[in-house]
Amino acid sequence: MKNESTIFGIRAIIEAINSGKSIDKVFLQKGLRGELFQELEGLIRSEKINSSYVPIEKLNRLSKGGNHQGAAAQISPVGFHSIDDLVLNVIESGVNPLFLLLDQLSDVRNFGAIIRTAECTGVSGIIIQKKGGAPINGDTIKTSAGAIFKIPICKVDHIKDAVYHMQASSIKVIAATEKANQTIYDVSLKEPCAIIMGSEGRGINPSVLKAVDEQAKLPILGEIESLNVSVACGAFLYEAVRQRQ
Amino acid sequence: MKNESTIFGIRAIIEAINSGKSIDKVFLQKGLRGELFQELEGLIRSEKINSSYVPIEKLNRLSKGGNHQGAAAQISPVGFHSIDDLVLNVIESGVNPLFLLLDQLSDVRNFGAIIRTAECTGVSGIIIQKKGGAPINGDTIKTSAGAIFKIPICKVDHIKDAVYHMQASSIKVIAATEKANQTIYDVSLKEPCAIIMGSEGRGINPSVLKAVDEQAKLPILGEIESLNVSVACGAFLYEAVRQRQ
Repeated sequence: MKNESTIFGIRAIIEAINSGKSIDKVFLQKGLRGELFQELEGLIRSEKINSSYVPIEKLNRLSKGGNHQGAAAQISPVGFHSIDDLVLNVIESGVNPLFLLLDQLSDVRNFGAIIRTAECTGVSGIIIQKKGGAPINGDTIKTSAGAIFKIPICKVDHIKDAVYHMQASSIKVIAATEKANQTIYDVSLKEPCAIIMGSEGRGINPSVLKAVDEQAKLPILGEIESLNVSVACGAFLYEAVRQRQ
Repeated sequence: MKNESTIFGIRAIIEAINSGKSIDKVFLQKGLRGELFQELEGLIRSEKINSSYVPIEKLNRLSKGGNHQGAAAQISPVGFHSIDDLVLNVIESGVNPLFLLLDQLSDVRNFGAIIRTAECTGVSGIIIQKKGGAPINGDTIKTSAGAIFKIPICKVDHIKDAVYHMQASSIKVIAATEKANQTIYDVSLKEPCAIIMGSEGRGINPSVLKAVDEQAKLPILGEIESLNVSVACGAFLYEAVRQRQ
């Protein structure tokens, strides 16, 4: 199985973006100029694609000595769904919607484990943000135990967009945060809902937290007061499974 | 913080074992003979210490060029409790016992995440097997977020010994296994109990499975039918928290 593929050359990348390929990240050569290069930069901005400026050596490595012209892109091994289609399809299919929103989770192994748990708990789809999160690469696929090919994933410009989209579709949005006053056992997960998990370091973005319908935490009985995010996500999703059975 | 320390030299290791130091693993030089070496081998067997035979180069590396005489040992950064004392102390303290037994879990990051979850869910102690499990090293400590220094850990010769010990102390032993007929929501975790998690690859040893009081599984709604063990352990422990609140 080919887990990841890299394309290089400015025009090739522009073509890939325009043809709708799922680009995970574009690497651009630091300090480069030129009309075509600027066209690519503009396209990356308008499509909100993850990118970073790197030394030429990194591009030489990525393109394995090929003529990269100062740009290389990693193509995502999975295709992404549109959030409009996903939410509509789930509602029309008659299942009780349960979505998972990930706010810039950074660790690839946590990301993979969460995808795996989501598949096992009947989550209808995972929504991630285009920028700032863990990539979908070989490690993600491996730690997801292949679940990544079984569950729809959507990318949105900002996770707040997904919150509003859910709410507009009468889906209750619940943030998993230790700052909550109530526990997951106090909140009803029976109705259509979406659960947001934050990143390992920062938790959920404050502006996202303001937009949600409810907040809930896992009770903490020890002194450490910090769970691994994939473990916390599993406890949340299994509480939804319990309440819905 | 010094996460791990290595001692070397045959007599030094014999002394360390006899003085009761927590030895994580002993590395012995392949093909070596000699009276003192055989004395160490005998001690390793009788004390059931984790060991392996390695080429001399590995010993040279471990001892950083010191005179290792064909043997090096890694001292565990945490001390271990005796299961007798632990169970007695927990019962006498008046808390409702909740123990976690790990049957040869092999991944260090899973081990660390489980220790962290156990501390957060009020587990009274973790029991592992002397041989065949993930080591307690710098990675374990890191992924446990320091929880390893907050929760008592016991080592037993065989995990079945811990099962019998729990049962003799009126603590119900529940195996987490996908082969179970009932889910964790059907089993009562309110009374004193111990939960066993199996290894990533093999699950729980069949002979251990025969000795337990109950078996329980997490419901699986997807196709993948396999959860990460640290996620599964978290869902189990949080179900105990929910039932006991």
